[in-house]
Amino acid sequence: MILKELGEFGLIGRIAAKVLQRSGVKIGIGDDAAAIEPGEGLLTLITTDMLLEGIHFDLSLCDPVTLGRKSLSVNLSDIAAMGGIPRHFLLSLAVPKHISVEFLDGFIEGVLERGDQFGVTLIGGDTSSSQTGLVISVTVIGEQYPDLIVKRCGARPGDLIYVTGTLGDAALGLVLLKAGVRGSAATDRHLDPLPRVREGIKLAEAGIPSAMIDISDGLLSDLGHILDLSGVGARLYLEKLPLSDDYREKQPLFLDDPLLLPLSGGEDYELLFTTPPGKKTAVHSALNETGIRFVEIGEITACGGLSLFTASGSEYPVKDMGYDHFSRY
Amino acid sequence: MILKELGEFGLIGRIAAKVLQRSGVKIGIGDDAAAIEPGEGLLTLITTDMLLEGIHFDLSLCDPVTLGRKSLSVNLSDIAAMGGIPRHFLLSLAVPKHISVEFLDGFIEGVLERGDQFGVTLIGGDTSSSQTGLVISVTVIGEQYPDLIVKRCGARPGDLIYVTGTLGDAALGLVLLKAGVRGSAATDRHLDPLPRVREGIKLAEAGIPSAMIDISDGLLSDLGHILDLSGVGARLYLEKLPLSDDYREKQPLFLDDPLLLPLSGGEDYELLFTTPPGKKTAVHSALNETGIRFVEIGEITACGGLSLFTASGSEYPVKDMGYDHFSRY
Repeated sequence: MILKELGEFGLIGRIAAKVLQRSGVKIGIGDDAAAIEPGEGLLTLITTDMLLEGIHFDLSLCDPVTLGRKSLSVNLSDIAAMGGIPRHFLLSLAVPKHISVEFLDGFIEGVLERGDQFGVTLIGGDTSSSQTGLVISVTVIGEQYPDLIVKRCGARPGDLIYVTGTLGDAALGLVLLKAGVRGSAATDRHLDPLPRVREGIKLAEAGIPSAMIDISDGLLSDLGHILDLSGVGARLYLEKLPLSDDYREKQPLFLDDPLLLPLSGGEDYELLFTTPPGKKTAVHSALNETGIRFVEIGEITACGGLSLFTASGSEYPVKDMGYDHFSRY
Repeated sequence: MILKELGEFGLIGRIAAKVLQRSGVKIGIGDDAAAIEPGEGLLTLITTDMLLEGIHFDLSLCDPVTLGRKSLSVNLSDIAAMGGIPRHFLLSLAVPKHISVEFLDGFIEGVLERGDQFGVTLIGGDTSSSQTGLVISVTVIGEQYPDLIVKRCGARPGDLIYVTGTLGDAALGLVLLKAGVRGSAATDRHLDPLPRVREGIKLAEAGIPSAMIDISDGLLSDLGHILDLSGVGARLYLEKLPLSDDYREKQPLFLDDPLLLPLSGGEDYELLFTTPPGKKTAVHSALNETGIRFVEIGEITACGGLSLFTASGSEYPVKDMGYDHFSRY
């Protein structure tokens, strides 16, 4: 079926029919606005991300179901980075003529599947035609107690720097996809990242992170935000950067510098957080339960700037690698 | 300055610097998510609309400041249609290379000006490049007491149908703009609609509307949503449709059918609401205070379907006018 036959209201009806009703939603899809009941004593967290065909995704490299999952994941990751509990989301779609109803059905299936996985409900959105590519805009609403919300600005000198999972996989995955490789762990990481929602909540509830961010733009860029907003610097130990087996195996075949993507590749959607050294044990007990990999990669320093150290103790040139974001240090 | 020199973080900083801080915002622009404090006993209302260059606006027909105002207005209008009080908003922009920093400054000025006018604060969003046109996505968050929120589904047989302002102006305005006319009341209505936020709140607080919607797609289409969701029909009296002086003067010069745009032209962003006949006096006292024009245009009927009547009492053919949305009646 072509989209034109279905029409805008047909599309909205098709989506609405698939959405499970959940408590807390007072008015869902189909009115001028949605209405939700905020939890007592909780702050409302809200984040939005836009994904554009040709900029954020290439329809020749992804299938509709995983694109749907990813569209929600990248937003859930922002709520995770605050230590928040995601609850609801809005989905806006601008759809060009070349997109089939079957594609949209797959996309919606992926979005709703990821929503169910993390207990978030679709409550509204917008649909439109597009003269150019597919445009996806997702807004996720979450909540958390004020004292448990983790900001980017709380890192203090002496704090340890931790990262969950492994780094560089998603960026390597994109390199692999463009080279025609399919179905590896790294390509899966690029196409279908899993937001660290449970881990973010665990860490927040245990009062562990002094600052936290999700790694969407790359480790150096995102750590840079924490440093800027906290008014501190950092040292990173390059041999500690967590690399996956797939990364170690395939990176040498495609790229010269093994550190380029773990340091500056985007879209890993891992959590990067800082915590006082006294909370080391707490980090282990909070994250061991989740089964996720995590590692300490450096520490926060009082004087500004970021220094990278190799295993031999020599300093690694940040500036020369073209990390513009750090040119001001 | 070209946008590339400014960069994504430069653009965000430029926007953030212009945003006034308001109470209720616990975390604003610059973290992974924004955090707001919900009012006690209130439900959170949330709505989103996407505007695409080439679909929703034509940069050769509008200036950046009014485009900014309109981007927020169309979303505020949805909160108004629920009887809600708008509080905060998110703004996402995907910006093509041909857009200058000066254009963006003007656009942001318009957005923030309209936000100040209605007491809503920018708390976050997303920025991206675009390979094609400018894409704008706005999400507005509001609130209201549960009992005061007005849905689309509450219209009952015998209810009177009211509309605020005048109809058809925005659609005529677009016709005029395309014909090279500038600076008329109708073109202003198209370029810079004013959402009926105060009127929506007044009506809700007085417990007047049994159902309400804003007229974004056109009177017949939007009334159709109320009829569908309320399971009722309606009669409209065509001679009662409120037309502006500018409409009466310019329509004959550009279009044959004087009723086409008031019935099916979009983007007037007036409020359409139903109320029991006993509340006629209450409607007058609530809306007289606001100084806005309003008029009763028909009534809700028990049997389904929509009938339009001319001044002579004869029925006006809805179907033959191509109102597809009503083809099922």
